Amino acid sequence: MTTPSPFYLDCDTGIDDALALAYLLASPLACVKGIGTVSGNVSAAAGARNTLDLLQLAGHAHIPVALGAHDPLAGSFGGGAPWVHGENGIGGVSLTTAAVSLVGESAAEMLVRLARTYPGTLRVLAIGPLTNIAEALRLEPSLPSLVESVTVMGGAALAPGNITPVAEANIFNDPEAAALVLAADWDVTLVPLDVTMTSVLEERHRQQLLVSSSPVPRALGEMLGYYFRFYEGIFGRPCSAMHDPLAAALAVGGVKASVAPVVRAAVDTSDGPGRGQTICDMRGSYMGYPPVKGARCRVVLSLEQDFAPHLVETLLGFPEGATAGVQQVPAVA
Amino acid sequence: MTTPSPFYLDCDTGIDDALALAYLLASPLACVKGIGTVSGNVSAAAGARNTLDLLQLAGHAHIPVALGAHDPLAGSFGGGAPWVHGENGIGGVSLTTAAVSLVGESAAEMLVRLARTYPGTLRVLAIGPLTNIAEALRLEPSLPSLVESVTVMGGAALAPGNITPVAEANIFNDPEAAALVLAADWDVTLVPLDVTMTSVLEERHRQQLLVSSSPVPRALGEMLGYYFRFYEGIFGRPCSAMHDPLAAALAVGGVKASVAPVVRAAVDTSDGPGRGQTICDMRGSYMGYPPVKGARCRVVLSLEQDFAPHLVETLLGFPEGATAGVQQVPAVA
Repeated sequence: MTTPSPFYLDCDTGIDDALALAYLLASPLACVKGIGTVSGNVSAAAGARNTLDLLQLAGHAHIPVALGAHDPLAGSFGGGAPWVHGENGIGGVSLTTAAVSLVGESAAEMLVRLARTYPGTLRVLAIGPLTNIAEALRLEPSLPSLVESVTVMGGAALAPGNITPVAEANIFNDPEAAALVLAADWDVTLVPLDVTMTSVLEERHRQQLLVSSSPVPRALGEMLGYYFRFYEGIFGRPCSAMHDPLAAALAVGGVKASVAPVVRAAVDTSDGPGRGQTICDMRGSYMGYPPVKGARCRVVLSLEQDFAPHLVETLLGFPEGATAGVQQVPAVA
Repeated sequence: MTTPSPFYLDCDTGIDDALALAYLLASPLACVKGIGTVSGNVSAAAGARNTLDLLQLAGHAHIPVALGAHDPLAGSFGGGAPWVHGENGIGGVSLTTAAVSLVGESAAEMLVRLARTYPGTLRVLAIGPLTNIAEALRLEPSLPSLVESVTVMGGAALAPGNITPVAEANIFNDPEAAALVLAADWDVTLVPLDVTMTSVLEERHRQQLLVSSSPVPRALGEMLGYYFRFYEGIFGRPCSAMHDPLAAALAVGGVKASVAPVVRAAVDTSDGPGRGQTICDMRGSYMGYPPVKGARCRVVLSLEQDFAPHLVETLLGFPEGATAGVQQVPAVA
């Protein structure tokens, strides 16, 4: 029997964050010890609200949730992406308000505490802007030696950006924090748009979630209806990229990368048109990415398997009983 | 019978520039009316020397060559790339010094003059930094309405850069000029690393050139020996990308693009890590690049045919007699 790995999740919940969280909760390989929120898709506070409500829906209200940074290290929160995630961040789906509330520590403090509690085994999964992770590095400079792994959904190595022609939203929303995280003394697994935009959930997958007997997959299926409408403008059909859940699955080990070179990576923190770009040095591509001295960023470019079936299968593993006492998720209009 | 198109060539000769020049001279579809040089692979002066000598070797000493900008619009010339092109820019191959000399006008003045002489038909092919083209736009603001087409070897859309992780050398060597050229009131065909790094000349092609009965292909084959040694560090075998000749062939119409979306493009002129990047907005890729309002940069991503055989066949078309009176090209040690 496999011992599940302790996880700290940093998120800006967000529709695909909700799927990532549900994936972690459903996976036998992960045990979520704490969750911090950060402004990104929605404000840190709105993300915390969604996270608490999702945890209650899933029967995991015991997992502590800490409020993280509202503003990026430089500048201020831009208001999120309601056109992608809906005004409430979860596609207009109404969840029962959780009975529990936020813990008193900040997200960065929680991460540091968990790293000390689970030295050498804690896995850090960051699926929003990296403000809290940068703050935790400032609070505890030895954080890199305490954690087992760091997986970040963010960046675009050779793929186009999604918020500018070259920048991906998580990194763009706090480039200064991302630069600190990538420069810290640890190996980072980056899950960029190169692989998340080719890991697509289709309408048939959404329908599988919608007919689940458990309200968690059903709620996710409802949220995805909103998300699919945004992505129809990008892919030309109702479907969506699976950014955050894929990062979760890679962090957990539920799916494996096939091509994932370890390269030098930096973040453009200038005020030029490249601001927020994750500059990955992919010049080794013509020789199959030979080892690069000093490189510490593992950039996932492709997977060993098709992701969507694994994601759906995992999410459908939620027991019916997980939601005893929670009112049924209403359908959105 | 096809009427050859009048061409202005702007170059920094350079091994692959030499191949591009020879391609233009050999093509029945092009008639080179003038050549300007610019600092890039070598200084503008060294590029002019190589250009004059190549023209004489090819029996085209009548084509006027004008000296262009030594320094980019901002900053100063960085010294070229002798590790790629050799100290003399043509891989150490010694050519007989041409009897003719440079014309009195500058490269930018020559371009403007030719555009006025061949209004609506002149094709501009720029295979070095874009300093002279930017200067010509300043001299003659109506230049865009005078020329038939502008083809630029430069940039990296979704491929890695070659002088930084994201910047291609021609654009990097004068980002301010490139920004002006891409922002001018004309359509530009960009031939980026995406397609030039996948259009590779192999050793067997080089051998075909070396055994030609004409000294022009033989000289090019000798130069390529040097070029191949540099590219062996990138591709892992003796071969080379065909940057400039491919731009020439596309400008001439000798080869056709298969995928070449018209997108918005800009150049990063910041002092950040993205300086010199050609930022092409490739976000339409997921829907096969639907038309974008106001987009004017045609980015060539792939070709209808394999380029190397076409290049070799064209270069082998040089008549033996083209070099009457010119001493034989010595082999390099």
